[in-house]
Amino acid sequence: MTATVSAQTRAETQIRDLISEEIAAICANDMDRLFRLYADDAVIFDVKPPYQTNGAAAFRTQWEACLPYLPATFQAELRDLAITASRDLAVAHWHLRFTGMGTDNPAALSWMRFSAGYRRTGDTWQIIHEHISVPYHPETGELAFALGAHPND
Amino acid sequence: MTATVSAQTRAETQIRDLISEEIAAICANDMDRLFRLYADDAVIFDVKPPYQTNGAAAFRTQWEACLPYLPATFQAELRDLAITASRDLAVAHWHLRFTGMGTDNPAALSWMRFSAGYRRTGDTWQIIHEHISVPYHPETGELAFALGAHPND
Repeated sequence: MTATVSAQTRAETQIRDLISEEIAAICANDMDRLFRLYADDAVIFDVKPPYQTNGAAAFRTQWEACLPYLPATFQAELRDLAITASRDLAVAHWHLRFTGMGTDNPAALSWMRFSAGYRRTGDTWQIIHEHISVPYHPETGELAFALGAHPND
Repeated sequence: MTATVSAQTRAETQIRDLISEEIAAICANDMDRLFRLYADDAVIFDVKPPYQTNGAAAFRTQWEACLPYLPATFQAELRDLAITASRDLAVAHWHLRFTGMGTDNPAALSWMRFSAGYRRTGDTWQIIHEHISVPYHPETGELAFALGAHPND
C-alpha cells in the first residue's frame, strides 16, 4: 500500500512537471519541446476548428499555422489544477489564460478549461488526450468568464 | 502480462457499460440512476454555465433545473468513442448528440464533445471528471458542427 501511494505521488509530480513544461514550451513557441510531450496517437479536442485532431503530427501542423499570430514570448496563468494518477494512467484538469500578448489577441480573450489524459511508457508520461474549451453562454454567445472575471474568485 | 491485459479489457468493458448506462439515464430523465455513476467529489466542466461544478450533489441540482425543458424521453447518438483504461483509472472521449427532442431545443442544436475520467473503488467505476463542450467558431460564434454536419463524415 505504501508503495502504491508512493508511486501515485511520484506520478502526480511527474504530471505536474509535464504540464509546467507544456506551458513553458507553448509560451516560447517551441514546437520541438512541446511535441515531445504528446503521444503519437493523441486525440485532441482543441478550442478552435477542426475540433477533433487525430495524432500529434496533425496537431503540430495546426499549432504551426498559429505561430504567426502569437508574440515571440508570452506568459500564462494556471489555476485550479487537479491531478489524479495511477501507476500508468493519469487525468488532470485546470484553467488557463494567456497574458502578455495584448488584450486584442483572440488567444487572450478568456480563461480556457483544459482536461487531459496521460499514459506512462517506461519512465515517460505522454499526453494521450486533451480537451480545451472556451466557455460561453449558449444563448448569447458571450464569453462566460473573460479576463478578470474568473468564476472561482 | 496476460493478467494485466485482461484487467484492462475488463475495465474497458466496464467503462463502456457505464457510458451506456449514463446515456440511458439521461434519456430517461432518471436522476437517481444517473448520479449513482458519479463520485461524490467529481468535478464537471459542463457545456453551459457555471462551467465548473464541484461535487456530484451540486451537479445534480443543476441537472434537475434542466428537467422542465426536456421531453419525457428522448434519444442520443454516440460516435467516436475511445477508452483507455488501467486497473484503477480510465479516460474516455466521444461525441454525442441528442435526438427525438425537436430541432428547436437548445440541447439538440449540435454535436457535443465529451471527455471523462473514471476511478475504480472495489468493483465499481465512477466518474471523477467530465468535460463537455459545444464547439463553435471563435470569430463568428457559429456552431462548428451542427446536426448533419459531423466533422468525421
